[in-house]
Amino acid sequence: MPTVYDIQGFHDDLVRQGFIVPTEVKGGWGRTGKFEDIVDRFNALVSRTAQDDGAELFQFPPIVPRALIERVGYMDNFPHLSGSISSFFGNDREALALSGKVNGGERWEDMLAPTESMLTPAACYPVYPMFSGLLPGKGRLVTVTGWVYRHEPSDEPTRLQAFRMREFIRVGTNEQVVDWRNAWLDRGLALLKSLQLPVVSDVATDPFFGRAGKMMAASQRDQRLKFEILVPVISEEKPTAICSFNWHQDHFSGTFGIKDATGNTASTACLGFGLERVTLALIKHHGFDVAAWPAPVRALLWP
Amino acid sequence: MPTVYDIQGFHDDLVRQGFIVPTEVKGGWGRTGKFEDIVDRFNALVSRTAQDDGAELFQFPPIVPRALIERVGYMDNFPHLSGSISSFFGNDREALALSGKVNGGERWEDMLAPTESMLTPAACYPVYPMFSGLLPGKGRLVTVTGWVYRHEPSDEPTRLQAFRMREFIRVGTNEQVVDWRNAWLDRGLALLKSLQLPVVSDVATDPFFGRAGKMMAASQRDQRLKFEILVPVISEEKPTAICSFNWHQDHFSGTFGIKDATGNTASTACLGFGLERVTLALIKHHGFDVAAWPAPVRALLWP
Repeated sequence: MPTVYDIQGFHDDLVRQGFIVPTEVKGGWGRTGKFEDIVDRFNALVSRTAQDDGAELFQFPPIVPRALIERVGYMDNFPHLSGSISSFFGNDREALALSGKVNGGERWEDMLAPTESMLTPAACYPVYPMFSGLLPGKGRLVTVTGWVYRHEPSDEPTRLQAFRMREFIRVGTNEQVVDWRNAWLDRGLALLKSLQLPVVSDVATDPFFGRAGKMMAASQRDQRLKFEILVPVISEEKPTAICSFNWHQDHFSGTFGIKDATGNTASTACLGFGLERVTLALIKHHGFDVAAWPAPVRALLWP
Repeated sequence: MPTVYDIQGFHDDLVRQGFIVPTEVKGGWGRTGKFEDIVDRFNALVSRTAQDDGAELFQFPPIVPRALIERVGYMDNFPHLSGSISSFFGNDREALALSGKVNGGERWEDMLAPTESMLTPAACYPVYPMFSGLLPGKGRLVTVTGWVYRHEPSDEPTRLQAFRMREFIRVGTNEQVVDWRNAWLDRGLALLKSLQLPVVSDVATDPFFGRAGKMMAASQRDQRLKFEILVPVISEEKPTAICSFNWHQDHFSGTFGIKDATGNTASTACLGFGLERVTLALIKHHGFDVAAWPAPVRALLWP
């Protein structure tokens, strides 16, 4: 039976079959226990796959310092995806006026002012400042699972405004970082193929903003700095990236003063699995009846 | 040896002993693997404690619909804690101007506009709209673990801008809801005492804003709508709330049209454990060497 790709149908089936719960925000749906079990099991499988690498685990909140977003150039490259957090700093009289606007159906956000934080756009962002200074000879390897925010409202169930990324972040010499990236590209493909997903890998680009962004993307593609692992989820023609690899060269190391053991500016790379997207891909390809998924897939996820 | 309460000293020890990682944001620190292990183990203990209750599990992202925040009166009562999300909706020319401001050290946030979302201020908020309509005779019981945001920057390690709450949400008749709340108040105290924390429970109030808020708080206290379980973490005189119980009466049911099985407006209540605060209380009372914690405490957390 050929796989049918119908965006609205897939969304509605996910709701009807008890995997997701709609909210008023596009790409802001809730997850049920059945959905979360798959997320957790896949994330645990990733941990087992990487257990001999000795990655240091950290957990960061979904907010990052505003100054960090400014320093890494996010507002230059991805302003349209950003999430800036404002709050109310006023007095009693102003609070009364605010309340009046909210309840009168007027817009009220001009009574707020920016806080010191923004939403985290990638789970690895809070990690880089930890590396400032001289690295040990072998460099470092860190892993995080975190909520990230991208303002791109969409009806596609695979395009979320808030989702979780399981990331690994490698920092060291160029050679250490590229070797690690290449090894994980093979390992990531093997991992996802073992789950019987029809994945392919390809050179990719980040969604840079506007006309200048087109040139950034072309340069990124020419230098083969970004790879993705893709699988059809909502369309055969436009497969969904479920894992991505970014080699940042000295972008973060220069900004945060990260030096390899010899004192040269270090190199960084990261890889991230989109946990909701992997879960959706598994549901799409193996069906809504999780108990009936292929035995080898179940054995890997529920060992 | 008497317990010493020294806010800055405790924070610095948590960093030195490898539990937390400072960031540029007050109350926005990172957690290490050692910290996360305690969080996960305590949360699992809560799940085991409640396993016979049959709570339905959901997971929501750290963002909620802006319209939900408006409807439940959050901007009337807690505007100072709110987190409103803005993004950039402009064209190429405006993006260039934005970039110029960011890199020129000027404030740039006035070039953004509000999105359809805000940060979730309590893990239970996205749950209530799911209950709209007629409830089954027994009502419903839901559990969630979620990241919440409160804009209250502080040097106290127990006062975070982003933290995780493990919540249970009960909806049904007044009697069902209050019985459930009372039973959990006993069970919560017993659970935390079994971890050898010197806890007490007390009537409490929410941090309502301003002069009008003082009256709201007095009324909430008179009606005994909010209870907390407290333990000294950063001060003996001002113990820290690590678990709180709120009976909302018809506040959410009225807003979202939630009816009990007989067609009357339902009642809701929630209880939440502050996962970082419980973890900090355990570290404060049992020490930085987790392997040397009292055997009965270790047996409960690492069964």
